[in-house]
Amino acid sequence: MPKENVKLVSTLSNKTYPFERLQEYSDNGESLDVVIPDIEKAGIRPGKHIWERFREFLPFRNIDPSISLGEGETPYLQANDKLIEFSGINNLYLKNEMQNPTWSFKDRGSLTCIAMAKEMGENVVATISTGNMGHSMAAYGAKAGLKVLVFVPHFIPNEKIAAIGVHGATIIKVMSAEYSTMKRRVLDMAKKFNLRIVTGNGPVRAEGYKLEAFEIYEQTKGKLPDYIAIPTSACGHIRGVFKGFLELKQAGLIEKLPKMIVVQAENNSPIVSAIKKGKRHVIPFKNVHTIAEAITTGDPPGGDEIIDKAYRYGWLAENVSEDEILLSQKILAEAGFLVEPATATSLYAVKTLRDAGKIKKENSVLMMLTGSGLKDAGVLKAHQTNLNELKLDKIETLLTEIL
Amino acid sequence: MPKENVKLVSTLSNKTYPFERLQEYSDNGESLDVVIPDIEKAGIRPGKHIWERFREFLPFRNIDPSISLGEGETPYLQANDKLIEFSGINNLYLKNEMQNPTWSFKDRGSLTCIAMAKEMGENVVATISTGNMGHSMAAYGAKAGLKVLVFVPHFIPNEKIAAIGVHGATIIKVMSAEYSTMKRRVLDMAKKFNLRIVTGNGPVRAEGYKLEAFEIYEQTKGKLPDYIAIPTSACGHIRGVFKGFLELKQAGLIEKLPKMIVVQAENNSPIVSAIKKGKRHVIPFKNVHTIAEAITTGDPPGGDEIIDKAYRYGWLAENVSEDEILLSQKILAEAGFLVEPATATSLYAVKTLRDAGKIKKENSVLMMLTGSGLKDAGVLKAHQTNLNELKLDKIETLLTEIL
Repeated sequence: MPKENVKLVSTLSNKTYPFERLQEYSDNGESLDVVIPDIEKAGIRPGKHIWERFREFLPFRNIDPSISLGEGETPYLQANDKLIEFSGINNLYLKNEMQNPTWSFKDRGSLTCIAMAKEMGENVVATISTGNMGHSMAAYGAKAGLKVLVFVPHFIPNEKIAAIGVHGATIIKVMSAEYSTMKRRVLDMAKKFNLRIVTGNGPVRAEGYKLEAFEIYEQTKGKLPDYIAIPTSACGHIRGVFKGFLELKQAGLIEKLPKMIVVQAENNSPIVSAIKKGKRHVIPFKNVHTIAEAITTGDPPGGDEIIDKAYRYGWLAENVSEDEILLSQKILAEAGFLVEPATATSLYAVKTLRDAGKIKKENSVLMMLTGSGLKDAGVLKAHQTNLNELKLDKIETLLTEIL
Repeated sequence: MPKENVKLVSTLSNKTYPFERLQEYSDNGESLDVVIPDIEKAGIRPGKHIWERFREFLPFRNIDPSISLGEGETPYLQANDKLIEFSGINNLYLKNEMQNPTWSFKDRGSLTCIAMAKEMGENVVATISTGNMGHSMAAYGAKAGLKVLVFVPHFIPNEKIAAIGVHGATIIKVMSAEYSTMKRRVLDMAKKFNLRIVTGNGPVRAEGYKLEAFEIYEQTKGKLPDYIAIPTSACGHIRGVFKGFLELKQAGLIEKLPKMIVVQAENNSPIVSAIKKGKRHVIPFKNVHTIAEAITTGDPPGGDEIIDKAYRYGWLAENVSEDEILLSQKILAEAGFLVEPATATSLYAVKTLRDAGKIKKENSVLMMLTGSGLKDAGVLKAHQTNLNELKLDKIETLLTEIL
């Protein structure tokens, strides 16, 4: 069991639930938040790991360091001239979540999910995933010695199965079912078996993403960026990070909240489209196809909360076309960062918002580099390379030209 | 120019060279070391980055933080039961260099190479590589705004070209030449053009790997492991790490040096074979074929130094068959770490040495996890996965069986 008095609360209608429930959403389908008791008294304590220093902000009685794969404490870097020029933002920063153990931000949520499984005495963890999430949970389950089930859709490429399967996870590939149907049915079945299915927007996962906010607080010595751009799909990441800042404010450690920038691919922008149109509910996308494979949730159950928060806190929202995603991936690579397409969306979104004057010249902006370009190496072939195929005796001529 | 009085010295015959030379070896082909002036007076200073805290151990006047991609400060983790059981080593540790910016240890050497290019006023960096090295140099050159040339052999897979090329590097693919011939000819041509070709065993690169030793010193609070296993190819990594410990000893910070374990694939063990046979010179391998693609140097010019040090300091050496590499990759993945095959060699080498009683039960052993399994995702398909392909209506039956 978690710490005493830890509860869950629905994020729109504020209904309270006991912590033990298996479902990741409220009865009426809202995202759930973990309520940390006495958050206003929480303080930072000494400790090696971020979760030790901020233990008073977390719902766990204890995180056994042996379950960690060494996630977090990722670099917070200033953008170079290339990125500044392209984006038009002088105070542009990057937090490189690709330097996590399985090379995406998902590892932070996997740590907290495994930690909670341990506290709840559960020895099986399950998830439904096409990529980063499945890989991360498989690795963390392996480290902690838990059984991992990963439900995958029929269209998942074999390389992704190989990368998840090598960790020893049981993979259940669901044939001849549409992805959203499959998700719903699997969640229903799980209830029968008392099996907890970890999703990208679960309350405990968001507690892991919260740690990014705490790291940003530490790394900037409290001088937070004005905006933080986060590619958004299932919603757990953006709301987890923001929850961290909300709690820092509640604890009296910061005064001003950074504004989030919700970023989606134009081909799948259920949340961004809604915000742009001033709607209060997600506009579902079907049969989604985008190269930004990590952000393809077409009808995110947590979307309404994000839309609500966007209005309430003055967030920005922008979507990005397929060509813009590819261009941004190339520009980021030419600045040193090999990101997956979903991650690249942030750069173009930020540029668009700056061009439109929604981000001011003096604003500081942080982009979260969410996942590695190696995860989807096939896409890289779309980029032109400066490749010269030569025999040995022609090299001197080439060197004379280019040096 | 570097700090005053920084020199190069050949590692076997102790001949001194001025720092400026372009060649990475002494006139008679020995590895070169950077000589740090007044090393016995060097101390650890306050600083955010490892290279700041240990600046007195480094040859640079200054490392501009803007050239960094956030390399280093990688986790130092205790092995879980799975790895302990497999290896037979109770005090087994892992340092996860896969959490570097381009997901291999190479980034540490790229930082120092770029730093030195800046100090030498060079705006082109070049390398000859089939993989991690080219990728790392391309990314670091991109970050620092330097022109990068990467010479690659004709047999390099297209995905690797894509991953290097996306960073904007000029790739020169040398057709119809054997890899070692190509290397020699390119190095000769480079001299004519005053072009510095950075190799895996260069003196400045080794300075980057030295930082791993300093981190291990910090992370263990001086309680160093007895042994450190390092997959070895061009030799820069193992000798760089060891140089770090030698300098810590010279500076009076440690008393006892850890012993290195030289690990190679059986199919390409020019150094390990020599050590096992008691020879003083590398036994060259030709037409090497191993799944451990990152360690395929068949006739490493720096090998004799490693052999010499192995005898002088009581190092161990072990090689690993193709099947053992695959098995070790699988076991590491089942413990949470998705490593490339070259990295996996260490686990089996350590197990073999423990089984043979060369590593004692009470010894502590550190394995350097050198590179990510995503770099060579094709190999992962060789592993059996627990894959179940089912229609929705069969899932309940499966869950009943496995839960």
